[in-house]
Amino acid sequence: MRTIKMAVVGLGHRGSWWLGQLLNMEDVEVTAVCDKNEGRMEEGKKKCAEKYGHEVFGSVNWKDVVAYEDSEAVLVTTYWNDHVKVAIGAMKAGKYAAMEVGPAQSMHQCWELVRTSEETGMPCMMLENCCYGREEMTVLNMIKKGLFGELLHCQGGYEHDLREVVNNANIYEREHERAWQYWHRNAELYPTHELGPIMSYLDINRGNRLMTLNAMATKSRGLNKFLQDRGENPEWADKNYRLGDIVTTTIRTANGETIVLTHDTSSPRPYSRGGRVQGTCGLWMEDLKSVHIEGRSEPHKWEPMENYWEEFEHPLWKKTKAADFTGGHGGMDWLVMRAFLSAVRNRTQTPIDVYDAATMMAVALLSEESIAQGSATVSIPDFTDGMWLKRDPAVKSIFSLAEVDDSLFEGTVEF
Amino acid sequence: MRTIKMAVVGLGHRGSWWLGQLLNMEDVEVTAVCDKNEGRMEEGKKKCAEKYGHEVFGSVNWKDVVAYEDSEAVLVTTYWNDHVKVAIGAMKAGKYAAMEVGPAQSMHQCWELVRTSEETGMPCMMLENCCYGREEMTVLNMIKKGLFGELLHCQGGYEHDLREVVNNANIYEREHERAWQYWHRNAELYPTHELGPIMSYLDINRGNRLMTLNAMATKSRGLNKFLQDRGENPEWADKNYRLGDIVTTTIRTANGETIVLTHDTSSPRPYSRGGRVQGTCGLWMEDLKSVHIEGRSEPHKWEPMENYWEEFEHPLWKKTKAADFTGGHGGMDWLVMRAFLSAVRNRTQTPIDVYDAATMMAVALLSEESIAQGSATVSIPDFTDGMWLKRDPAVKSIFSLAEVDDSLFEGTVEF
Repeated sequence: MRTIKMAVVGLGHRGSWWLGQLLNMEDVEVTAVCDKNEGRMEEGKKKCAEKYGHEVFGSVNWKDVVAYEDSEAVLVTTYWNDHVKVAIGAMKAGKYAAMEVGPAQSMHQCWELVRTSEETGMPCMMLENCCYGREEMTVLNMIKKGLFGELLHCQGGYEHDLREVVNNANIYEREHERAWQYWHRNAELYPTHELGPIMSYLDINRGNRLMTLNAMATKSRGLNKFLQDRGENPEWADKNYRLGDIVTTTIRTANGETIVLTHDTSSPRPYSRGGRVQGTCGLWMEDLKSVHIEGRSEPHKWEPMENYWEEFEHPLWKKTKAADFTGGHGGMDWLVMRAFLSAVRNRTQTPIDVYDAATMMAVALLSEESIAQGSATVSIPDFTDGMWLKRDPAVKSIFSLAEVDDSLFEGTVEF
Repeated sequence: MRTIKMAVVGLGHRGSWWLGQLLNMEDVEVTAVCDKNEGRMEEGKKKCAEKYGHEVFGSVNWKDVVAYEDSEAVLVTTYWNDHVKVAIGAMKAGKYAAMEVGPAQSMHQCWELVRTSEETGMPCMMLENCCYGREEMTVLNMIKKGLFGELLHCQGGYEHDLREVVNNANIYEREHERAWQYWHRNAELYPTHELGPIMSYLDINRGNRLMTLNAMATKSRGLNKFLQDRGENPEWADKNYRLGDIVTTTIRTANGETIVLTHDTSSPRPYSRGGRVQGTCGLWMEDLKSVHIEGRSEPHKWEPMENYWEEFEHPLWKKTKAADFTGGHGGMDWLVMRAFLSAVRNRTQTPIDVYDAATMMAVALLSEESIAQGSATVSIPDFTDGMWLKRDPAVKSIFSLAEVDDSLFEGTVEF
């Protein structure tokens, strides 16, 4: 089995974690690393040298690393703002690109991502790990097997108390990405963890598409309160956060389903991705750990999701035993990376492609536009230029229930 | 204690239930009944005669009953479409009006309701029973005691599988109100059960107001599927229901909170009012029967709502022991009617007034306008003409935690 040679650009919190994972995969060789911070770049080189017994290429300039010939894929784990720029550079250099999740900064950027992939023929995959979440994929399996009937409505949220993360200057740098975005942008900044799975449920860009979007934000209170209460970072405590504490985004699809997204990261609360899927035959609610399926569940009663795991766990999870994989959000990080590597090895399209990435990233931007216009409802571009009508969900996406690609499960020391 | 003489207009399902309740209250005398269906009107007269031992006035014409001199209050339990017309007639005849919940049919109608009350000096109360729900009032008490901090966001829904009710021609008449509305209107048709309590949480029309609204509807599938699956009512099975199966409405207030409402009555599901209240210090989720309160709950963990009942149950519930009252949705029907009767007896404003009623009814209408315009965001009128800035929530509303009015608890055989 061919070893995939990869470059890693961006070695902050997430990037250095990914580097460690890649160094443990037997079918991957990290050949180049990059961080604009020289110390972090050198730290990355050191880790590689320890693993491989020889030096790897390193630079503080991402252009050098993307151009470095001895790799066929680039992992982009920079600040959000730089994802697209580096991914485009990688594709132009003839490399597969994988990039971490994050919002778009402009609509033009989304189109450039799409056009670059089309023109170069190189895929770019957004590593939306929750698309590979165990519960999300089980729900997907239940959907495709018809348990919910015709789908009507999906919900999800990034409901995660990040007050400490956003406000703690020590975790990353002083001007770390999330704080910067929170100061300057009032938007659904981080929709992909819930929207990614929902797009797979609804066959978005593969027979369906997102049509219109509306976003509404609350006032901004939580982050300032947090700092004022603690007396920490006094120079931040009165700084104006543009981001509303809770942002609600509603979306309607071409096929008539609605989606509600919640961004809720500035208040004390338990973590949730707030999943809900509803169709003509029943619904699932993640928070309740419950479903109601007509004909199976008692009328008007919830039934534990537990009853459905054995029968409906997605074959990808059953076959890989990904649940036993301890690192990276309970196996889904491993799965999303294996899916990318499989596409690189087979020189095929990635299961989450540039159309999906552009759509997810655009939702962040369009929510900002909607809020800026007093919650005007805005249109969502069709990044496929009409191809969504013809793309077959069962062929192009790993979210299909087609045969599981065995090459995903090889080449890692964890198995 | 003075007996309140009342007329009842509309003796369908809900009206005849209310008539039975009123006949059991010692401080109430039903002096006139009305239904456009003569049989139902006669049935109402018969019930009164059995209770009182003498005939009461009856007519199939609501105008006769509203004009009937020997009453000081009129209960309006007609079809939704007729609520405002009859309530306005009652106020113009110098009577207190109470009306059941329902959507507005036009904006002008909402203003007429408001102006009639202002011009006649007669109050009109929408009997939004869920404002008096045990859990809702307990949450209200927790809010006013500051447990959630500054409020940011509220959610609620009318999530109730009504496929049988809407489609069953035998329950009411052939052209019963809900089916009629579902056939002809794509809107958040029934927002008041969740919006009423939320308005009390957020001091709406008493220091705050609803500003903008957006609504988005799914396709319509559930009701036709239900009939087709059952092979019932073949002449209805292919009829086009305009109402989307799930309608999501988002609202922003003057003080910067957001509200999300869900109308979801055409699919199989357990009943829920889907309550959620979130502030800078924590949140409540009705579906989870849980809260998270910073400083009380374990960080990042849910805590059972059960832990809060004893300390925070609303004094109105504690004092009346309304929970022991078995009829009418667990006591809240009793409470909402006692609140109305207390206002009539004391000749004071009702705790839910015409401004509140117009606001709640307008939300239904505005959601229809929003959907009809492709989910355009629309403005919500200020029915108080600016008075909301000066109205004191603690004085005018029963939702305040001011002294509980003892006259509420008297004059009923249940205590």
